[in-house]
Amino acid sequence: MPRFDDADFGVEASPRDPQPADAMDARSPLDLRGGGLAIPSEGGNTIEVPATRSSISDAAQFMHNLSLSPSMKDRRGSRNSFGTSLPIPRSPRHSRLSTVQRPGAPSVSRDILASQVQDMSKEKVDAAKNMAFAFDIDGVLAHGNEPIEEAKEALRMLNGDNELGIKIPYILLTNGGGKTEVARCEQLSEVLEHPISTDQFIQSHTPMQALAEYYETVLVCGGEGYMVREVAESYGFKNVVHPKDILAWDPTISPWRAFTPEDRAGAKPRDFSKMKFDAILVFADSRDYATDMQLIMDLLLADDGKLLTRASDPVSKRIPVYFSQGDLVFPTDHKGPPRLTQGAFRIGIEAQYKALTGVDLERVVYGKPERATYTYADEVLRSWMEQIHNENRLPQNIYMVGDNPQSDIIGGNMYGWNTCLVRTGVFQGKEGENDPNNPANFGVFNNVLEAVKAAVRKELGHEFKLKWNPKINPVTHGEGTSAVE
Amino acid sequence: MPRFDDADFGVEASPRDPQPADAMDARSPLDLRGGGLAIPSEGGNTIEVPATRSSISDAAQFMHNLSLSPSMKDRRGSRNSFGTSLPIPRSPRHSRLSTVQRPGAPSVSRDILASQVQDMSKEKVDAAKNMAFAFDIDGVLAHGNEPIEEAKEALRMLNGDNELGIKIPYILLTNGGGKTEVARCEQLSEVLEHPISTDQFIQSHTPMQALAEYYETVLVCGGEGYMVREVAESYGFKNVVHPKDILAWDPTISPWRAFTPEDRAGAKPRDFSKMKFDAILVFADSRDYATDMQLIMDLLLADDGKLLTRASDPVSKRIPVYFSQGDLVFPTDHKGPPRLTQGAFRIGIEAQYKALTGVDLERVVYGKPERATYTYADEVLRSWMEQIHNENRLPQNIYMVGDNPQSDIIGGNMYGWNTCLVRTGVFQGKEGENDPNNPANFGVFNNVLEAVKAAVRKELGHEFKLKWNPKINPVTHGEGTSAVE
Repeated sequence: MPRFDDADFGVEASPRDPQPADAMDARSPLDLRGGGLAIPSEGGNTIEVPATRSSISDAAQFMHNLSLSPSMKDRRGSRNSFGTSLPIPRSPRHSRLSTVQRPGAPSVSRDILASQVQDMSKEKVDAAKNMAFAFDIDGVLAHGNEPIEEAKEALRMLNGDNELGIKIPYILLTNGGGKTEVARCEQLSEVLEHPISTDQFIQSHTPMQALAEYYETVLVCGGEGYMVREVAESYGFKNVVHPKDILAWDPTISPWRAFTPEDRAGAKPRDFSKMKFDAILVFADSRDYATDMQLIMDLLLADDGKLLTRASDPVSKRIPVYFSQGDLVFPTDHKGPPRLTQGAFRIGIEAQYKALTGVDLERVVYGKPERATYTYADEVLRSWMEQIHNENRLPQNIYMVGDNPQSDIIGGNMYGWNTCLVRTGVFQGKEGENDPNNPANFGVFNNVLEAVKAAVRKELGHEFKLKWNPKINPVTHGEGTSAVE
Repeated sequence: MPRFDDADFGVEASPRDPQPADAMDARSPLDLRGGGLAIPSEGGNTIEVPATRSSISDAAQFMHNLSLSPSMKDRRGSRNSFGTSLPIPRSPRHSRLSTVQRPGAPSVSRDILASQVQDMSKEKVDAAKNMAFAFDIDGVLAHGNEPIEEAKEALRMLNGDNELGIKIPYILLTNGGGKTEVARCEQLSEVLEHPISTDQFIQSHTPMQALAEYYETVLVCGGEGYMVREVAESYGFKNVVHPKDILAWDPTISPWRAFTPEDRAGAKPRDFSKMKFDAILVFADSRDYATDMQLIMDLLLADDGKLLTRASDPVSKRIPVYFSQGDLVFPTDHKGPPRLTQGAFRIGIEAQYKALTGVDLERVVYGKPERATYTYADEVLRSWMEQIHNENRLPQNIYMVGDNPQSDIIGGNMYGWNTCLVRTGVFQGKEGENDPNNPANFGVFNNVLEAVKAAVRKELGHEFKLKWNPKINPVTHGEGTSAVE
């Protein structure tokens, strides 16, 4: 188990002005690549959220200050603007995201009966509308494509199978990624046997769509096949390059490449010696570490994002690199300990860069426990509330249910949410044990259903029934009997 | 270009007793896995050479001492014995290595004439037998399978095409690896159009055959297909495990594995949950970074080398890991800057291990510029001298010709050899420029032929002819005329 993770550094990061001086610069976004993210020009649809984690490579946490030359320090100081500002969309883009059906509408008769019941118990209804859940997916609702059985019952209850027949809002907040929100939600709807809307779904790179207003030509890494190309294009990036496009142009650039005939068929080779890259985006786990590490290193060492070149100064001409999440390990269908994921990949790159240049790599990491991800979650939750209850507001009692103390729990704790740690994923603690470094403030549960029940009973009372009774008499709340009998 | 490389740390490494106290321990080698390498029991055929580089992960070069707990320090101190001792074979094992033909024997008549010429010029002959060359291969003699033209002429001259018709001894000293010495020499003989004997050849992992006396069950990583399995078995390791053997047993152990039907066909799956690994050996560049990093990390974190387990203490139960060489980059047929190689792979693993455990990874790195590699080169050169001149002794004037200042040159300089840096590989310096950090002491040359000519003329005089004259008169050294005409 990790002794520390990115999360630990988040709290150490020195707070900085979310709108640094040079971010107000009037230059067009594209001129700012190397020089810090700016508030986009008129018509921009992004919010900049100050990073809660340092922009400096984690390796730096262990360095002697002496090992940084003053000049490097100065330069870094002047360029942290990009490292400490994480743009997110100003509001969820329904037009772009909502192509999946709304949660399955229950029968009209039930709706009528439920509304009658709800009219009779206003207090409980207000409480139900004043709470919400944010669920991690892997290790909480499912393992890969295997649903966790208790999750299905929990979702059924939140979708209206309760004494009020009321929908209790929930969103899915995952550090996963690699395919479009639409594709992932279709997959999840099948696995969980409950319709999941893209409007209640946030994966690691969802907030990164805001970066499309800053960068035109991007290298996008990670995920199966070429799916991250679709993702980046759906976010509005104009010139999306996949590592395998570059392999198709010059296979010798990566001596130990994995490059199949199918890869070649899907590749879009261009003359990359003429192209200037604006940024590097890692959206998911690399499927070809050797090639992705080599190409990312090539672009980081290059002169202002031009392949085959090397900058004389490793820092001033470096293009920015973004990672969609920072988890070191994640739960899979493997029966042994959790497997390495994007955070481990990133740390390898940071160390290689440090070894090759002697200076630290600045990078931006999105995803839980980054504040920007939770800020964006609020936006999504507010608009989801509008869709299911016609009330555009944020519930006061939000419960994060996760399996990874280093991302789900520390992030929720920092953001003021109620946090529930489950035993079905990364967390391996014994019965009755909480995580020593990042304890869940609402408690540890064997599975997501137990967590949901505990939260609902806290907000709606211990006698609250987690089952809808179609025979209920809305007045007496007893078994209904027909008046004409 | 690297601002620093493993090589820089070599000189900083604090010298330690090559035979530490607990290395004299009477326990059998296999009991010593976690506890330091010992002088093997009776009948051992190894020499232990103190490491010139620290056994502590390079990341540690930048760490606050405070970030290491005293207990860790103590434990490390007690375990440096394995980290600072590099066993090498006590002498080249002809029986094992010599299966390739000797350098092509020139015609008998030329031999007779040459010996007559040599009898007449004893001084030059002594000088010729008192010099030798050690050539790096990639970037000096060839680029992959493309020979560097000047190299062929240089080898022809050293093989006897000179005014004395004498063989000037040379060995090949490469940080490459991944296939058996026999296979690699057959390939080189074709590429260079000169027979290369395994008895004049040292690749990065050749000296590591000595480790077979210490470890029985080893994970061996790197190289094409399953060739490193053959290598390890030819070295005498009894139970050799290839990463793909483990994938065939449980593919879920590496979520982003590269595993083809051909891979499966060649795999030897066993029940690895029952197996106890003694050591990890990296022999060449990984062809599947994700899987190799995951499996190496699994074994480093495991309880005494048992897969699927995790040690409560990351250090005391850790099995040792050996890397065959430390270069960060190497020259390939790619037209851009040099590509990442084993050193970058290792540094990624060191950083991941540090992030997961909070402690530094101890590891052993063989290959240039490691002293053990040069000590072994002396052994090989001495026995090669015996084969071509029947004189088992070491020439006094040894010339290392290499393209990488961080390995070839610093290593030769530290070992007291004459060093020649060529421009046909990693080194990118301008005309007349030497490497600022690790200058070649004999100079910089455009190619290997220029370096060889300069060295030969220094030792044998400027008028020494680099061509054999079949018509020469051994007495007058003029054109020969038959006495009977």
